[in-house]
Parts: sequence; structure tokens; C-alpha cells
Amino acid sequence: MKRILHIALAFVLILVFGDLAMSQGPDPLPSWNNGKAKQSIINFVAKVTKQGSPDFVPPAERVATFDNDGTLWSEQPMYFQFLFAFDRVKALASEHPEWKGKEPFASVLKGDVKRALAGGKHAMLEIIMETHAGMTTDAFEKIVEGWIATAKHPTKKRPYTAMVYQPMLELLAHLRANGFKTFIVSGGGIEFMRPWVERIYGIPPEQVVGSSIKTKFEMRDGKPVLVRLPEVNFFNDKDGKPIGIHTQIGRRPIAAFGNSDGDLQMLQWTTAGPGPRFALYVHHTDSKREWAYDRDSNIGRLDKGLNEARAKGWTVVDMKQDWKVIYPHGKR
Amino acid sequence: MKRILHIALAFVLILVFGDLAMSQGPDPLPSWNNGKAKQSIINFVAKVTKQGSPDFVPPAERVATFDNDGTLWSEQPMYFQFLFAFDRVKALASEHPEWKGKEPFASVLKGDVKRALAGGKHAMLEIIMETHAGMTTDAFEKIVEGWIATAKHPTKKRPYTAMVYQPMLELLAHLRANGFKTFIVSGGGIEFMRPWVERIYGIPPEQVVGSSIKTKFEMRDGKPVLVRLPEVNFFNDKDGKPIGIHTQIGRRPIAAFGNSDGDLQMLQWTTAGPGPRFALYVHHTDSKREWAYDRDSNIGRLDKGLNEARAKGWTVVDMKQDWKVIYPHGKR
Repeated sequence: MKRILHIALAFVLILVFGDLAMSQGPDPLPSWNNGKAKQSIINFVAKVTKQGSPDFVPPAERVATFDNDGTLWSEQPMYFQFLFAFDRVKALASEHPEWKGKEPFASVLKGDVKRALAGGKHAMLEIIMETHAGMTTDAFEKIVEGWIATAKHPTKKRPYTAMVYQPMLELLAHLRANGFKTFIVSGGGIEFMRPWVERIYGIPPEQVVGSSIKTKFEMRDGKPVLVRLPEVNFFNDKDGKPIGIHTQIGRRPIAAFGNSDGDLQMLQWTTAGPGPRFALYVHHTDSKREWAYDRDSNIGRLDKGLNEARAKGWTVVDMKQDWKVIYPHGKR
Repeated sequence: MKRILHIALAFVLILVFGDLAMSQGPDPLPSWNNGKAKQSIINFVAKVTKQGSPDFVPPAERVATFDNDGTLWSEQPMYFQFLFAFDRVKALASEHPEWKGKEPFASVLKGDVKRALAGGKHAMLEIIMETHAGMTTDAFEKIVEGWIATAKHPTKKRPYTAMVYQPMLELLAHLRANGFKTFIVSGGGIEFMRPWVERIYGIPPEQVVGSSIKTKFEMRDGKPVLVRLPEVNFFNDKDGKPIGIHTQIGRRPIAAFGNSDGDLQMLQWTTAGPGPRFALYVHHTDSKREWAYDRDSNIGRLDKGLNEARAKGWTVVDMKQDWKVIYPHGKR
């Protein structure tokens, strides 16, 4: 009986493997135009997965880290988490009548984002803390889930989760199909990402590294809760990215993907290890289908990173030239 | 040709599956005596993995967290990381002639541990910072690897990695064989554990949550390094455990394993979630083969936790009664 089961199982596996061979098709990156960028990805993955090759990397060490804002989804006219925070200010305004006479909240409520941000980082931090702290972690998760399910981008009029990059989704899938473990390493809030990135990117919560605020363990009616405090715990940007990678992953990536100077240290840290290494910058060059910006942008500035990428021969993706589509489902 | 390959593959798979069926055998926990503790584990795993059952938990949510000291390996006469720190003081003494006249270092160098620790937490923290900070993360990893490969326990005369609990190794393997992702959540230093826990427990670095000191990103001769600073970053004990779990894993465990009051909040946090939950305390009751201690111990005190375990019906492992062997290879 056991032998019959095994043979049956074997036939099932033949069918499955046959199907996979067909469905995988010849091109794992169909939304990428043929060119240097695409070829460099294909070559790197082939090289490190080839058994017996001097460049072979065991699966456990195939760690790939991705920035989020501007690398996996758009980030204009400003980081989507800021737009979330503005929406929260509006939603909470009735509980805070004092905000009408208090900046930066007054300007947010009037829809004058420019004036609200005139206070710089300090003003933004104030808005973040008022909208991201004070509740339990469970409550915050529900707030994010509710927002991401309904909110739309101010000019593209799409849900934010429809503003992820189709070519990067294919890249994530291609890496995972080749034994890579894919991580997000973002300056964005770790708890702003976790509620939706598993569904959208296939990246589970434990593979998300990001900025965080402090939390406090408390017993409420005999039940433990974690309360979010208005205090920065860790800022996972620039120098913080290698530190966040080291603390949370504990293993140096062999491939890293970013789009701004905020990712430069992550790419430096990744490429400084021994053996084959891969670094890629997404360069925002498509003013029609997405946005075009680099050295002078306040959001996602790519200046030093672009110089270093050229000097070191890192892959630079020209979004306009290299990507057939930007967003999923062929919508541009 | 492809079909031939598929058939060959199928036969290989038959062999592999046949082997697995034999090697797995009827008992996944052979070092556990039959009893309530063992049965509670078997039942829980069977329940959450049974397709179609109301208690079924999808694999992605099968997160199990394990304390390390006293839960996966011994912790007497004191945490092994402290013994590592004392060994480091001796190894570094020639570079620090001033230590001969300075407590707590002078007492450590004389072998008078009791007197060295008379300064309490402050003294221990001073020793930790002198021995764990100041070098790069790469250098510290090599120091830990060198020590763990050669050092022996003062009374048991075994390598520390031979003082892990065989029954817990079987439990880790049983959980993983059933789709669980196993994590360490320890008060010990994250970088003291990562160099060896993958080899010993099968737990990769990215699944280790622990205490940490701050690090700093620096360029040295054009190469990025992370330098360990003598400053606490996070203390992953008691209240810190649910916070560490939330920050690093981002998902509430469905099963948690500990041995002391330092694990109580982790067990509370784990069992407070919806659906089936499992909490287990290892109770150190074996003065002959290991050590017997609980309510009055300075190391690994189990007092409030034992009360709560009894009140809530958590599993309590009686090491003397429940475990056939303590350490691997039948050596006791």
C-alpha cells in the first residue's frame, strides 16, 4: 500500500514539475526591456545559484534587501506614509479642537500641505507622533489596514497598493524562486508597512526592517497590550540601514536594491562583503508614467549614490528605458 | 529527454520520502518520557496542523519563540555569556594593566567571581561593556566563534554547545517538521548567540531576538564597518520580550517556551492572542543530571511564572521526571 502511495505521489510531482516548467516560461522578468539592467540581474542570479561554480552561494546566505519608498512603490509628491499621517490628522480633528489654532495641524486641516511642512522635520515629527502613537499596536494595525484599503493617491487616483512597481514584483518573485530570502529595509515605519506588504510583495512581517517608535508593555483588564509611545526608537535610514540589517537580520545581504542617497550605506555595506555581490539603483527618469527626479529632489534624492553607482559599476535602472510598464495590470 | 529526467526525479523522491517515513519513526520526541508534558506538545502540534479543523493555523502564522538560557541550554552557575565575559577579561588583561587595581576586574583576574559580582548589576554591565564593545561586529563574531569552539564549562567540563537540552532539540525539530518557524527570544546578547545557534539549534541569525548594544557605521580605509559601542540598545527581558517580538518578528507567536519569570510576559503575550495557544515552562528539578532551582534562584528565578502556569494550565516540564536524557549523545 505504501509503495502504491509513493508511486501515486511521484506522478503528482511529475505533473507539478511539468506545470512549473511551463508556467515559468523563458522570461522571469517580462516587464523588463532587454538591456544591461535586466541582463545584470539574470546573470547574477544564475551565477550564485549554479552548483559547483566558484560564485555559488548557499541558499541560507541568499539575503536580498529592498528599500520600499521609490524602490518598490512610488514616493511622490511625498512619502505615502506622510499622506497617511495627513489623512489621520483630518480623521482625528474632531477630537482635537485645539488643532484649528495650532501649527502644523491648522495648515494640514486647511489642505495647505506646503505651509504645514514649512516647519521642516520638527513639524513632520510632531504630526507623525500625534497620528502614530498613543494607541495599542493592535489598534494601529487596524488603522493602517483601513486606510490602505480605501485611500487613493491625490493625482494618480489609484489605491496606493496599485502604485507598486510591476517590474520589481517580478524581480522579488524571481529572487525567491531562486532560493533568496527577500527583506524590506526601509526608512518608513515598520508598523506602517507590515499590515499590507505580505499580501502585496509576498514579504512576511518578520522580513520587514524599518523605522520604529518605542512601545510599552501594559496589562489592561488582565490582558497584555503594547502601547505606542511618541518617542523615536530607531531611524532606519542612511547609516541606520546597515545597523538595522545587522540588528534584525544578522547576516550581510548579497544583493541590495534602492533608489536614493538614503540607501547608499546599505549598498556599500552589501557590496563590501566577500564573494559575489549585487547592488542596484532605481533611477526615476519617467516623468510621464511616473515621476522624474534625482539630484535636486527633496524626496528620494539620488546624488552621491548615482556617482558611486557609476564609479563602482552598480546596476542603474532607467525606469523610462528599462521598464515596459510601471504599475501592475498594464495600467500606466 | 525532459520526461526521462522527470521520471528519474520521481524515483529519487520516492527514495527520499521512503527514507523520511522510516527515519521519522512513530515518536518525534524520543527523549521525552510519556506523560502530560509530552502529550500536551504532541496534541497542540496535531491540532493546529490538521487541515479543516477549527484549530487549524496557516503555516505562516506558526511562530514559536524560545528563551535560550535555561530553556535551550543550561545557565548555572551563571549565564554562560557571563563566563564568556570573565574569560575575555583574562584574555585582555595584558592590554589593561590598570585592571589589577580596579574592581570588578581585579577580582575576576584573581578568580574571585563572587567578589567581582558583589558590585551587582553595575559591575556586571561594566564587565560586559569592556569585553563586548569597542571592536567591529565582524571582529566580535570571530571572538565568540573562537570561544565557543574551545571553552569548557567549569564543573561539567563539557563544551557549552554540548550543554543544550536534547529533548528541546527534538521539540524544535518536531515544530519545524510541522511548518513552524522557530525563533530564539533571549535576554542574552543577540551577537553572542548568532555565531553558533544556526549550527546547534537550526535557527538562522534572522530568527534570533536578543539584547543588544548600539553600533555605529564607519568607513575605515574605504570599507564600511559597524563598530560596537559601550551603550545598551535594548534589553530583551521581561517586559522587553513582547516588545522585542513585536519589533523584530511583527507577529504574535502561537507557542512560547521559557523557564523563568523573565519569560512570563512573553508567555502572557503569546497566550493572549485568539485561537489555539501554547505556553510551556521548563522547571529545573534535576539536581543530579543538571541543577535544581526555582523560586529562590538569582539566575533563572521561576516564582510568579510557576504560579501563573499552574493557575492557567500551562505545560510545566519536570526535567527530572519528563526527560530521559538532558544533554545530547546520551551523556548525562
